Amino acid sequence: MTDKGTLFFKNKPVIKSAFTIVGPKESQSELGKFFDICLKDDRYGESSYEKAECKMLTMSMKRLIERQKLKDSDVDAIISGDLLNQIISASFSARDFETPFLGVYNACASICEALTLGATLIDGNYAKNTVCSAVSHFATAERQYRYPLELGAIRPAQAQWTVTGAGSYLVSEHLSGYPVISSATIGRVIDFGITDVNNMGAAMAPAACSTITRHLRATNTTTSDYDLIVTGDLGALGSRLLKELAKKQGLDLEPNHVDCGELIYNIDEDEFQGGSGAGCSSVVFASYLYPMLKSKKIKKLLLVATGALLSTLSSQQGESIPGVAHAITVECSND
Amino acid sequence: MTDKGTLFFKNKPVIKSAFTIVGPKESQSELGKFFDICLKDDRYGESSYEKAECKMLTMSMKRLIERQKLKDSDVDAIISGDLLNQIISASFSARDFETPFLGVYNACASICEALTLGATLIDGNYAKNTVCSAVSHFATAERQYRYPLELGAIRPAQAQWTVTGAGSYLVSEHLSGYPVISSATIGRVIDFGITDVNNMGAAMAPAACSTITRHLRATNTTTSDYDLIVTGDLGALGSRLLKELAKKQGLDLEPNHVDCGELIYNIDEDEFQGGSGAGCSSVVFASYLYPMLKSKKIKKLLLVATGALLSTLSSQQGESIPGVAHAITVECSND
Repeated sequence: MTDKGTLFFKNKPVIKSAFTIVGPKESQSELGKFFDICLKDDRYGESSYEKAECKMLTMSMKRLIERQKLKDSDVDAIISGDLLNQIISASFSARDFETPFLGVYNACASICEALTLGATLIDGNYAKNTVCSAVSHFATAERQYRYPLELGAIRPAQAQWTVTGAGSYLVSEHLSGYPVISSATIGRVIDFGITDVNNMGAAMAPAACSTITRHLRATNTTTSDYDLIVTGDLGALGSRLLKELAKKQGLDLEPNHVDCGELIYNIDEDEFQGGSGAGCSSVVFASYLYPMLKSKKIKKLLLVATGALLSTLSSQQGESIPGVAHAITVECSND
Repeated sequence: MTDKGTLFFKNKPVIKSAFTIVGPKESQSELGKFFDICLKDDRYGESSYEKAECKMLTMSMKRLIERQKLKDSDVDAIISGDLLNQIISASFSARDFETPFLGVYNACASICEALTLGATLIDGNYAKNTVCSAVSHFATAERQYRYPLELGAIRPAQAQWTVTGAGSYLVSEHLSGYPVISSATIGRVIDFGITDVNNMGAAMAPAACSTITRHLRATNTTTSDYDLIVTGDLGALGSRLLKELAKKQGLDLEPNHVDCGELIYNIDEDEFQGGSGAGCSSVVFASYLYPMLKSKKIKKLLLVATGALLSTLSSQQGESIPGVAHAITVECSND
């Protein structure tokens, strides 16, 4: 049986540029110096956190497009997602552009879904430029999924901290010198029966393991072919679980695995297990890892954004939390 | 300026099969005899309407795949969406399949987004079979967007009735004799400032007009080149608005426009303006229009699924309701 769902991009679509905007907490982390815009006010001058989240996404896409001296009518499609009900951040952002819009939702795996679809449109000659983006905001996620901040609820030890950040990418036709998206594996939905809504890392680790295993097999590569294998937001606990699960499959992820959720915060206070959210892998890859590929400090990287599939209602109705993970290989251009 | 966002499918991907499941009310409409499964119980034997919605989607995809004598591991990707927060129906359905999953959300335009992406994956030789699907349920939509049914709230005259139904499509490599998806136009997000959450037709009509105009221009066709121009769920009022808007653009839609929301119900009781929901265009096209293309009763059709982009929170925060519409041309195979 050949495994389905791995796409090979022969025409070498590139990530031509990336742009990030983050909140005050993210600005103060060790990655702080890599972000394009660091907000001092996590309301971004808006009357609600939801409007601030939308504005972060809009501005990250506008600045990305402007920096490339493009107009929004030059972009074939915006492919974007977020965590809010009915992905209102992505939807409302898109109305500020003269650009066709595809809304995606695979929770925190949305950025790799967007990049996969963007690369597909470019590689198949359906488009010349696509903007792929994702956003999340700590305050909107807490209000929607858990409790409004005003309630001062205590966070359990296994909890993660939703990243306030927007990351946008311009995926374009091949151009020498830019990092190439060479292949992608679309994730399966994997359910290990986790029901703890504060333990997303455990819910997503099996999906990450499944997608990494499938991607390596389909592309005929091993873990050592990659400088880094980067998961989205498993956090410290989820990353440990992933490495254990991978070990059982005969894969040693110890030498080159990093997790964006572990990278983004100095884990010394309330975020406990590290960062999470649709913006987590999106801003960490865009600001910190993508430039390493561009400058050829690293040559090949597997980005595996991870998502937990649930709603408040599904948890109230006793459903477990399945996970999904999408992977893309990004490598230095050879030409 | 060339208009972006229209995709041409040179390899003629086909819709090989379709499968529909609908609720009791839809079963009793004039289209009732065309649906594959008509439920007598809109809970489908489940403990909640949300679980029933998920089961409808799952069963429609399972039966679709079985009917083609495929296994779910033969399918390259499920591309699916629904209206519930975090698209839990699509997400939870996908865990019952060994198939990679891409979650999409563009409200009631999701089925055309899914079909566009499915056709792209097939046309570009990234996949051989994709399942594209969408679902909605009257009771879950009322509970989430308006009031739980138990409250017995009065519905205003401009309201529509969310279709209880799941429609799934198998989009595959070209095969002689099957209807071909020949092109698609990705919609822009258009906001006319409508704020009445009971008047989705008005919110979506400008987006439908924009997408139809763009699609005709990009494909160098006129309205008379299509046997039917089919909108998703504008309803009676929205359809009138669309025709007025189109007239101002010099387009006469009177002769060949139909709306799935107007087709699905005998408009004689509570549904007022007709059907709506992600399942509306999905089940009407799959059950009633697709067979007409297959039997060559009609030759060429433009399907324009329409979506209203809002959440309860966005409306509470005073946001207007932008719309989006995606269009696909489906035509009889010439070979």
